[in-house]
Amino acid sequence: MTTEKSPVTVIGLGPMGTAIATALVEAGHPTTVWNRTAAKAEPLVAKGAVLAGSAADAVTQSPLVIVSLLDYDTSDAVLHPIASVLTGRTVVNLTADTPARSRQAADWAAEHGITYVDGAVMSPAFTIGTPDAVVLYSGPEDAYRSCADTLSALGGSHTFLGSDPGRAAAYDLALLDIFWTSMTGLTHAFALAEAEGIRAAELAPFALGIAALLPGSVADMAERLSTGRFRAGISSIRSNVATMDHIIHAAASRGMDAGPLGAVRSFAQEVIDAGGGDDDIARLARGYLTATANRSS
Amino acid sequence: MTTEKSPVTVIGLGPMGTAIATALVEAGHPTTVWNRTAAKAEPLVAKGAVLAGSAADAVTQSPLVIVSLLDYDTSDAVLHPIASVLTGRTVVNLTADTPARSRQAADWAAEHGITYVDGAVMSPAFTIGTPDAVVLYSGPEDAYRSCADTLSALGGSHTFLGSDPGRAAAYDLALLDIFWTSMTGLTHAFALAEAEGIRAAELAPFALGIAALLPGSVADMAERLSTGRFRAGISSIRSNVATMDHIIHAAASRGMDAGPLGAVRSFAQEVIDAGGGDDDIARLARGYLTATANRSS
Ligand SMILES: NC(=O)c1ccc[n+]([C@@H]2O[C@H](COP(=O)([O-])OP(=O)(O)OC[C@H]3O[C@@H](n4cnc5c(N)ncnc54)[C@H](OP(=O)(O)O)[C@@H]3O)[C@@H](O)[C@H]2O)c1
Ligand SMILES: NC(=O)c1ccc[n+]([C@@H]2O[C@H](COP(=O)([O-])OP(=O)(O)OC[C@H]3O[C@@H](n4cnc5c(N)ncnc54)[C@H](OP(=O)(O)O)[C@@H]3O)[C@@H](O)[C@H]2O)c1
Repeated sequence: MTTEKSPVTVIGLGPMGTAIATALVEAGHPTTVWNRTAAKAEPLVAKGAVLAGSAADAVTQSPLVIVSLLDYDTSDAVLHPIASVLTGRTVVNLTADTPARSRQAADWAAEHGITYVDGAVMSPAFTIGTPDAVVLYSGPEDAYRSCADTLSALGGSHTFLGSDPGRAAAYDLALLDIFWTSMTGLTHAFALAEAEGIRAAELAPFALGIAALLPGSVADMAERLSTGRFRAGISSIRSNVATMDHIIHAAASRGMDAGPLGAVRSFAQEVIDAGGGDDDIARLARGYLTATANRSS
Repeated sequence: MTTEKSPVTVIGLGPMGTAIATALVEAGHPTTVWNRTAAKAEPLVAKGAVLAGSAADAVTQSPLVIVSLLDYDTSDAVLHPIASVLTGRTVVNLTADTPARSRQAADWAAEHGITYVDGAVMSPAFTIGTPDAVVLYSGPEDAYRSCADTLSALGGSHTFLGSDPGRAAAYDLALLDIFWTSMTGLTHAFALAEAEGIRAAELAPFALGIAALLPGSVADMAERLSTGRFRAGISSIRSNVATMDHIIHAAASRGMDAGPLGAVRSFAQEVIDAGGGDDDIARLARGYLTATANRSS
């Protein structure tokens, strides 16, 4: 009944690697796994995966090797010693790190005749194998296309972003920047509320109302950055900074750290001092890039 | 046809005060206005509002005075000299500032026999008079209830939060903390993307996907803070900090400022060093409060 599926090797069995290997096994791919701590493979072996005795042995079982390790220091430490067995195979590295590390890894792979596709999983491990998985890729397009069918076993949406091997990581980090900045804003806000005697459950319904504004802000900011129209509509950076000062002062009056806005406040002041005070907050993005230009000149 | 509406005075005609006075005039309230810059009253006078020659004159026209000025320095500067004419009247102060300033204003009002309700408008000026207006109040409940009917002319939702006059401002600042931290995260992320050659319009669809996760995160964080269950589910503070480091390093490699996460990263390290590394990011909220306790002891 089942069509022949191509063999795949998965290196790394943290929560993400385990989810990936599980999805591949369940999709019917002959799946070989390797992990520093071999015991983590047990549930996978019970499902039909084969545990290899070494990373080199694991790699020789499949033309396609999917890597999911802690970071690129780890990935390099595991892959560099087995370069010769990787030669002629395709590595899809889903380990998260910086764009620069992905580009270095691609250069290293090219030197060893390894086909290298970089990827970033944008959704949690539990989404793998479900329609909620979101995976981004960059690198050689033909290499990506030739393993796209196998990668579809991971479920959800798969987007190829271009040939720069650092591009998937750059998207990943920009999106994680949005997410973790928002999350830390939430923690500071809940703490400030609690310091003022407001319980989390009391603030939550209003916080949900604020969170619901974010998609509209994303669309507005993207539009402003695309068109360069920065003149403030609803409020200016100058008034946003006055609001930030209220927050920072209120936090300080409760002995609290200024939180994420503490760092932004002085940066926003630089943008105001440079003449941007009447502009929309979107102008801060240009501020970061101008700072870039200044610093690199 | 129209039922008799009670007279109202509006002090301050910035975008917000103008929107408030306009909504009151349109709802049929005899409306007296005052603004430092008298010319801003012209469109309102054309609609039927009465422009008073001084703040004191404006106040004597109505038992209810709504104040919408830049901040409490401004509000105090305008109201303190006219305390004697305010005696016996109700002031609803919708000026934004810190909870401490609202409490000081309430104390001052009590000394002068002025009934004082503090408020915070959570939605932009253009929402006033529409179903999208969101206004929070705190102070003496009976005073709020007796002017709630008039305030309903501002449209949308009106929520009374309790007798502490600083409570509306505390909600306001906690919610603005969420909003402006998220907004500055967006600006940093779009800048990082652009530095990596990714245009705003390219990042936007993915950024919308991330923004859509925030309501779920609010609910989860409120639940964790309510129950004290901090043990990490999807990811731990330790791994969140690794992600923050990737973002900060990627930004630095493009000559960019670390952005809002720059301040959080070292704070999160303190939480890890204090034994919270395996916990969820929600634990940072407790970290801010522990820091409070330490600093105030
Ligand atoms: N988990 C998620 O929901 C999620 C979501 C999106 C992206 N990601 C990314 O996916 C990657 C994997 O994440 P994860 O959550 O599965 O777990 P992780 O904790 O980031 O990484 C665990 C894996 O790295 C291995 N490892 C760590 N240090 C090693 C070393 N010195 N030598 C050899 N192996 C080493 C572990 O082996 P041992 O088992 O022997 O320790 C394990 O296989 C990360 O880059 C992560 O950022 C994860
Ligand atoms: N606009 C919004 O969408 C919005 C949303 C939520 C909350 N708020 C809050 O609502 C309040 C009013 O905001 P706004 O947007 O209308 O404008 P604003 O720029 O915050 O305040 C303008 C008002 O303050 C007056 N003012 C400033 N300095 C003064 C001084 N030294 N003496 C006397 N009056 C002075 C201005 O008079 P002149 O006209 O003479 O300058 C004007 O009436 C603020 O606290 C703001 O944070 C506004």
